[in-house]
Order: sequence, then C-alpha cells, then structure tokens
Amino acid sequence: MPALPPDVDPLRVGRVAVRAGIVVTGTEVLTGRVADRNGPWLAERLRERGVDVGHVVVVGDRPDDLRDALTFLAGTDVALILTSGGLGPTADDLTAEVVAAFQGRPVSLDAGLEKRIGGIVERLMARRGWRADRQATAAGVRKQAMVPEGATVLEPVGTAAGLVVPPADGRTGPPVLVLPGPPSELQAMWPAAIAAPSAGRALGNPGELRQGTIRLWGTLESQLAATLREHEPELDGLEITTCLRDGELEIVTRFAPGAQPAYDRLSAVLAEDYADTLFSSGPTVDDLVAGALAERGSTVATAESCTGGLLAARLTGRAGSSQWMLGGVVAYANSAKEALLDVPAGLLAERGAVSPEVAAAMADGARARFGADVGVGITGIAGPDGGTPGKPVGTVHLCAVGPDGRRARSLVVPGSRAAVRERSVTVAMQLLRLLLLGGPEV
Amino acid sequence: MPALPPDVDPLRVGRVAVRAGIVVTGTEVLTGRVADRNGPWLAERLRERGVDVGHVVVVGDRPDDLRDALTFLAGTDVALILTSGGLGPTADDLTAEVVAAFQGRPVSLDAGLEKRIGGIVERLMARRGWRADRQATAAGVRKQAMVPEGATVLEPVGTAAGLVVPPADGRTGPPVLVLPGPPSELQAMWPAAIAAPSAGRALGNPGELRQGTIRLWGTLESQLAATLREHEPELDGLEITTCLRDGELEIVTRFAPGAQPAYDRLSAVLAEDYADTLFSSGPTVDDLVAGALAERGSTVATAESCTGGLLAARLTGRAGSSQWMLGGVVAYANSAKEALLDVPAGLLAERGAVSPEVAAAMADGARARFGADVGVGITGIAGPDGGTPGKPVGTVHLCAVGPDGRRARSLVVPGSRAAVRERSVTVAMQLLRLLLLGGPEV
Repeated sequence: MPALPPDVDPLRVGRVAVRAGIVVTGTEVLTGRVADRNGPWLAERLRERGVDVGHVVVVGDRPDDLRDALTFLAGTDVALILTSGGLGPTADDLTAEVVAAFQGRPVSLDAGLEKRIGGIVERLMARRGWRADRQATAAGVRKQAMVPEGATVLEPVGTAAGLVVPPADGRTGPPVLVLPGPPSELQAMWPAAIAAPSAGRALGNPGELRQGTIRLWGTLESQLAATLREHEPELDGLEITTCLRDGELEIVTRFAPGAQPAYDRLSAVLAEDYADTLFSSGPTVDDLVAGALAERGSTVATAESCTGGLLAARLTGRAGSSQWMLGGVVAYANSAKEALLDVPAGLLAERGAVSPEVAAAMADGARARFGADVGVGITGIAGPDGGTPGKPVGTVHLCAVGPDGRRARSLVVPGSRAAVRERSVTVAMQLLRLLLLGGPEV
Repeated sequence: MPALPPDVDPLRVGRVAVRAGIVVTGTEVLTGRVADRNGPWLAERLRERGVDVGHVVVVGDRPDDLRDALTFLAGTDVALILTSGGLGPTADDLTAEVVAAFQGRPVSLDAGLEKRIGGIVERLMARRGWRADRQATAAGVRKQAMVPEGATVLEPVGTAAGLVVPPADGRTGPPVLVLPGPPSELQAMWPAAIAAPSAGRALGNPGELRQGTIRLWGTLESQLAATLREHEPELDGLEITTCLRDGELEIVTRFAPGAQPAYDRLSAVLAEDYADTLFSSGPTVDDLVAGALAERGSTVATAESCTGGLLAARLTGRAGSSQWMLGGVVAYANSAKEALLDVPAGLLAERGAVSPEVAAAMADGARARFGADVGVGITGIAGPDGGTPGKPVGTVHLCAVGPDGRRARSLVVPGSRAAVRERSVTVAMQLLRLLLLGGPEV
C-alpha cells in the first residue's frame, strides 16, 4: 500500500521492556451503566513502575468472553494480566473460576478464608441493621472462599479476596492478578498485590518512564500538529499524545529518562510558538486556581444558572477547598436571581436573563452575598429547548470579578446539554485563572 | 477441576445469533484522562438491534496494538468490528491507516473529500477567530482525506469522515466500521453508518433482545443472590446482572421475546420478596422524582454543604428541569448557612454544622428562600480531613421537607471524598422520592 507521507508517522518511543494487559469484567461496565475507573487507575499505577499497558479489554459477565480475553492478552507478550471485578457472591461473579480454569488449576474451599469473609459479612449486615438470612449469605460466602490451588490469596478489603494465579506446573504464560471491582477495594488491595512474590517477579524492575503534560487554551489541534511535524527531528524518543477537551488542548508526552533533552526542547518550542495560549506545564487549571486562592488567602463564591451547580461541585470536589470556597447560589429561576443574588429586576427585563450584564450582576451578587473576594457568574441556555434565533441553544455568558477587576466571556457552545454545561464550567475556571494569575485574552 | 456447586452457575441466555466487537482508540482513554463514552453507547445501540457485544477493547495510539485488537476481535466470531477515534489531523491519529492495512486495502487521496474537509476547517477557524496557517492545516486535511480503496465514506459531522472498510477481495473476515472519537460526532454519524450497505448486511436482521431493570434500595447483593438461586428453575432464558451502586441494587435482565413469561415470573418474585426495598421496575430514582414534581406542579430547592452543588447539578442535568427546579444554595462556610439559609447561629454553635438539626434547618431555609414546595438539606464531612471521633469522615445528615412532612436520614458513608459525596446525593434523591411518592423507611 502507498505509504502515507512520513511526516504523519506517530511520534513515539519504542516499546518498553515490560508490558501488562488488563481485563475489566462486568456487564454493567460493558453496557455503560457504570463507567470503568479501574482500567485507567491500574494503567497509571503500572506506568509509574515503568510497565506499559497496551490493551484494556472490557468483557461482560460471560465465561467464554472472559476466557477469550485472557487468551488474547496472554498472546500479546505481557508479563502479567490483571483483572478487576467478578468476585462477588452472586451467580454472575465468575472471574476466580474462569481464571483458575485458564491457568489449569483446580479450585477448592479455603476454610480459613471462608471464616474470615463470613465474619466480615456478619459485621457489615449488623452495622447496617439489615435483615440477615444466615442460610442465604453462607452460600455467597462459600463461593467467595473458593480458591485456585497454588494461588496467593490477598486478604479482603471489602468482602472479596484478591488472587495471584500463576500457570499450573508445566504450563507457560503470565500470572493473572485477580482484583475486586469496587475501586476503593481494588486500590486498597494494590500494595499487597504488587508485594506478592509472583506478581512482583513478573513485573521485574523495569526502567522508569517519565510523563510531562503541557496545556494550551485557544489553539487548534491541527495547528499544533504542524508545529510537531516541523520539529520532528528534534523530538526523537518522545511519545506525544494530544487531546482536545472542553476547549483545552492537552499535550501528554511519555519518554525514557535518556530523552529528557528532547522533552526540554519540545517544551521550549511550545513555549515560544504558543506564548499566548500555553497556560500550564503540568498543573490543571483547577490546580492553578486552587493554588492561587490558597496563596493569596482569597475566597470565592459562585452564581450559576445553566451550569446548575456544576462549577460549585467542581470547586468543592477538591480536598481542602473549604479553605477558600465560601459557597454558591444556583439561581435557576429568575426570582432566585433577584432574591438571592440581587440582580435588578429591571436588568433582567431589559437585557434578558441570558446576557453579559446579568452574568456580571450575578458575579457581583455572589461576591457581596457571601462576602467573598472573588465572584463568578454564569448564565446561558444549555438546551435542548429554550433557544431563540437571537440567543441559540449553547449561548453562555460568564464573568469573574475580584478586587483587581473583571474578566468576561461570551460564547456559543456546540453540542448536547451536558457538553454546554461542562464546557461552560471549564471556561469559568479559565476566567478565574486569568483573573487571579493574569495572562492574555485569547 | 472440581465443579462449583451448580447453583452458582451464571443465569444467562445462550449466545445470540449476531455479535459485534468494539475497539476504542486513544492513549487519553487508555490512561484515563478521558472516560470512554463511545463503547457503552455503541453497545447499547447494537443491543437495541439485537446485536450482542462481547468485548470492548481500549487501545492506545499505537499501530501494533490496534492491529492486535482487530485480529483478536475478528477471531471471536463477530459479524462487524466498530472502531472509535484516531481520525483527527495529528500524527497520533492512525486508525484509518491501520484498518486499511488490516483489511488489505491500499489508501489513496479522495480529492473531493479533501475539498469538503478543507471547507469545514476553514469555516471553523473563521468562526472562532483563530489564526489560520493554510500550509499547516492543509497537511492535516490531506491526512484526513486518505481513504482505503473500496471503502464507503461516511460524510464528516465534525472534520473527520467515517468509513466502512470490507476485507479486500479474496480475504475473509468482518467489515470494519470506522467512526470518529468525539461522542457527538460519532452519535450523529450513526444513522448513516448503519444505513451503509456493507455494515447493514453484516448486522443482518437479527432477533430482538429485550431488557428489563428492577431497582432495590436497602437490600444486600448476597440476599438477592439467594433468591435467584432458589428460583433458578423458573428463570430459564434470562441473563441477569446485578450491580450495587451508591447503595442502590440494580438488576438488569436481558432476554429474547420468548422468555417474557420467565421475566414476568422474576418480576413477581422480586416484588413479593422485596416489597420494602423495591422502588422501581424501570425508571431511575431521578426519573421518579422528576416525574412526581412535574405531575404535581411542585417545585424544589436545595441546600448543600458537603456535596457542594452535586445535588443541584444532578437535578438540573435533566432537560426540562427548570419547570420544577428553582435553585439551590451551596453553603460551604457556616456564615453562608446563616446568611443565605437562615440557619440560627445558636443552632450551629449548639449542635454543630454537621447535625440532623442543621440539615433540617437548611432544608427549611432553602424552601423558604426560594419559595419552593420542597426543600432538601445536606450537611456532612466528605473528608479526607475534618473528622473527629464523634463525627468521623463520612458522617452525613440529610433532610427533605415538603407540605406533607419530612424525611430524614443520618449515615456514615465509607470511602473516598468522591464516594461520600456521590452516595450522599443518591440518598438525597431517595429521600425526595419517599417524600413525594411515599414508601416504607428501610
């Protein structure tokens, strides 16, 4: 086949020495009722150890599909396979059984483990005051205590034990590290999992992989692609991934320590070419805003209409945010904008609730009502209904105000109701950053 | 290997006639910087057509890994492979090229497509007022117009065209449907994709698969497992998946139309055994609350401390919520609880901000300040800091109040800051449901 022009070849490091594969089980994940958090979390922990993940396979609760996924990953030259989920007491939880068969190991009851899990379940039900049917729960506990012979048991954090299951004697292939599905259990079990000899041996002591992130706000991805092509010869040994999200362009680069000079060169090129839009060489806009507020001892309050509390939720999602976040008002109804944010009724009538003037008045109102140093106001039409020819769905006005002035922005965001709301919140964070840390308008 | 007791075998339907496999590409997805929304969305669309998805494989932007994933899925007896992502103008976007090679088809420039994409990019840049470097963007546009010979082009919704790529003449294997990564583009392209003859032929006209969902609040998963085991003989032909999320137990069942009587039997068994905790045979708690508010013409307002706006964001995330959602106050600081929600200073001093009495006062305050029929108050300690021996991290008090009375709940939620916040919001929704629709306390 005719080769593409060489300048569109991927910029990337060679494959690192040790690789792992991940299987995430659960029909609820496959069908999207629950978003997978384990695959990315495990991939990140492995990356920190210099282990590279090539594939995350999501499978439903069907033994054949799980077996196929294990067979596939075992054939991709991985040193370890990790699974999450399918260790509960119900009939659709079958990971331990399938992994045991895959590795050629019979399962048998671990009586000590059965007793320990039984105690955990009993305490759990007593604490919640739920009715306990001893007969019924005993069957579930027994199922959770069936262990492949020769496997290492990782003590339960919730009610499920983890397992490290090596191939049976005489077989080859990677060991399988079997972890529970609830993210809090999986994460709490991780230190014990990698301390287990068979898992640790598989991962060895591979080389470090570094990762750097540079963030732009207001540059097109195609523009950046041209810059990267232009400087390609200087960027040897870098794996660069770009991602456009809520209007921010994130450039993540992974590299072995020997390629540090190439990464420094990339950083310098981007700093020069994108001086107006490069706002971070690492921290997120959330990190920058939180850091600036904490450093100045400033406080913030929010006034939201179309984003309906998402900005306040994003700010308060951060541990320690009570240091600088006083609160916010979600003023969905016009009456609430008047009563709780002192937006003048005349302004609402004259300009309309979705206007730059009302966004500014909401920011002022939040600042005054909460006694905060900084106020942010957002008003807009998230859709899908409510648009007019003059003010289409996606019209959003934002304003951030502080002791040193104000920053405002008006835009029409394309996409769904959720997209309009999320993008608006990110723009509000960028306005807060500009207000607190300065920088050119883009 | 010794068989597990037969009663823990999975309850599931046999494999349906037609299957498909999905590949989601993107290092940003693999490493969790972006959550995948396309895999679940596509799986759901396929399910509606009676097509079953066995695996969703997430791969980074590496050609070898993508090729391996395609090879794996082609070997799992699928009629169609779908890919999302990797169609952009940058060097790490290489899906079209890899799929072309996988199917044995050379790529060549589609001059008409190049012109159409060029026009789109130009209008896009003009609208945003971004600086355009014609030379640079032309290379990206040209890359996006390289098409495998014999493939069907699906017109761009954003800047990327989709593709249906059958295997080259003389080769066997499923066609590959290549779709863009941004969910809004992928979703908008879907009707054209399945209308394309080669994709439609692959999917055929398979039988319908039905899906039913039953929701419990306050039942342990192991309890439910015992019930399912007990009634197993009556439930032939059902694939039942249970999932515990934020304290709600979701039971999703998939079945062919012929198994409808078995599903009706399951529904009856659960309705009888879990009369106290079964709150829905379909709609989510959000659906129920929104429906009840709309039907009564009632309005609601929120007062949040530890959840920081998440409850308001969840309520307003729904299209049409402005009909019944007046707004809310995020009262993170105690001063805000007094000033904006009229919580008495004496009560805060005497009971502490995290107390059932303050939750009730916040609910009353929100109701009064917004003039709403229903008020909800949440106060608690989300952590990781701020806990005391008497009020550990995770302590949350909630109250919902309306014209007919109030519902309150106090609990200690285990887990991370995010888990405490999310669980609290779900409990608040359940209290709203109980207040509006009635039902036993569990």
